[in-house]
Amino acid sequence: MTHGDDPVAGRWELLRSESGEEMPLFQVRYDWVRNPRNRREMRRLVLESLDWVNVVAITREGGIVMVQQHRFGVGRETVETPGGMVDAGETSRDAAARELLEETGYAGGAWSYLGAVEPNPAFHDHLCHHWLARDVELTREPEPGPGESIVVRVMTLGEVREEMKRGRLQHVLALSALGRVFPLWSFPG
Amino acid sequence: MTHGDDPVAGRWELLRSESGEEMPLFQVRYDWVRNPRNRREMRRLVLESLDWVNVVAITREGGIVMVQQHRFGVGRETVETPGGMVDAGETSRDAAARELLEETGYAGGAWSYLGAVEPNPAFHDHLCHHWLARDVELTREPEPGPGESIVVRVMTLGEVREEMKRGRLQHVLALSALGRVFPLWSFPG
Repeated sequence: MTHGDDPVAGRWELLRSESGEEMPLFQVRYDWVRNPRNRREMRRLVLESLDWVNVVAITREGGIVMVQQHRFGVGRETVETPGGMVDAGETSRDAAARELLEETGYAGGAWSYLGAVEPNPAFHDHLCHHWLARDVELTREPEPGPGESIVVRVMTLGEVREEMKRGRLQHVLALSALGRVFPLWSFPG
Repeated sequence: MTHGDDPVAGRWELLRSESGEEMPLFQVRYDWVRNPRNRREMRRLVLESLDWVNVVAITREGGIVMVQQHRFGVGRETVETPGGMVDAGETSRDAAARELLEETGYAGGAWSYLGAVEPNPAFHDHLCHHWLARDVELTREPEPGPGESIVVRVMTLGEVREEMKRGRLQHVLALSALGRVFPLWSFPG
């Protein structure tokens, strides 16, 4: 399929890149670019990262396997889908299965890919992949990382919606994955 | 409503905070915290920011007002809902109306709040507010900022879905707003 008649917002010339701070989750990069509209040079921030992944995991009994934990950005506990970073050399499916097992102890089941999203194309260079795992089973105790303290909650869809209303389930990447499996909102009339 | 019997993942003690780099979009902060599960001290990254906002703007004729622009994180053009940052002292609605006008020239109409999401509670401290504006009208030429080069596209829902399939509309915050107004996905059977 060609799109030769597409509108084009203009090609930004990349003048140079420089590395910034190496942070816990990101390698900072600055790109110096030229705006095609006014020829001005601008410095743009890019937070380089590996891809992320999360998973909507559903037990044989229909429970949704969620994790509750303190999140340091917002400074309070949230309820989210299990997930994490795709390690180098790992597929997003392997990463999703690994994170699900480490964080919750659940494994197995039938897996299908729900697609990927950009966490923020303005300054992130990576994707977040969404997976669906049906009929997962509890296979062992969770083994959270040294920087995690997690409560596993197997929830009904009603309980998920209740946490959305309470404001503890507002993470857009968790909602993005859940929203591809369950109807989360009623559309405006 | 009380939630006294809630599971609790544990209270992380904040030991100290230190300011990091001031970046174009964020003020970096590092929080030193103690994991309640294993008592280990960890350094956690927080990217402090003002809130963000975006808007699903629909014309009287039913067109969806979208913006196409080069995004520096992913290094290519994307198609998104109009939006930006809520300035200090501004309401999220005022910010949404301002960004819509600056980026597209559209204004007016009937506005309703769609809710807010956390862009990422793990390291962001802020929210992104979603607005719906119906019956907006083209009132003037767009006035993009010096760092922007934007093509305005008034699209049908079918065209929006086509850009999703092509991978140019993958920004999770844009999809989050659109997904509260339109059915974007068919649920797995």
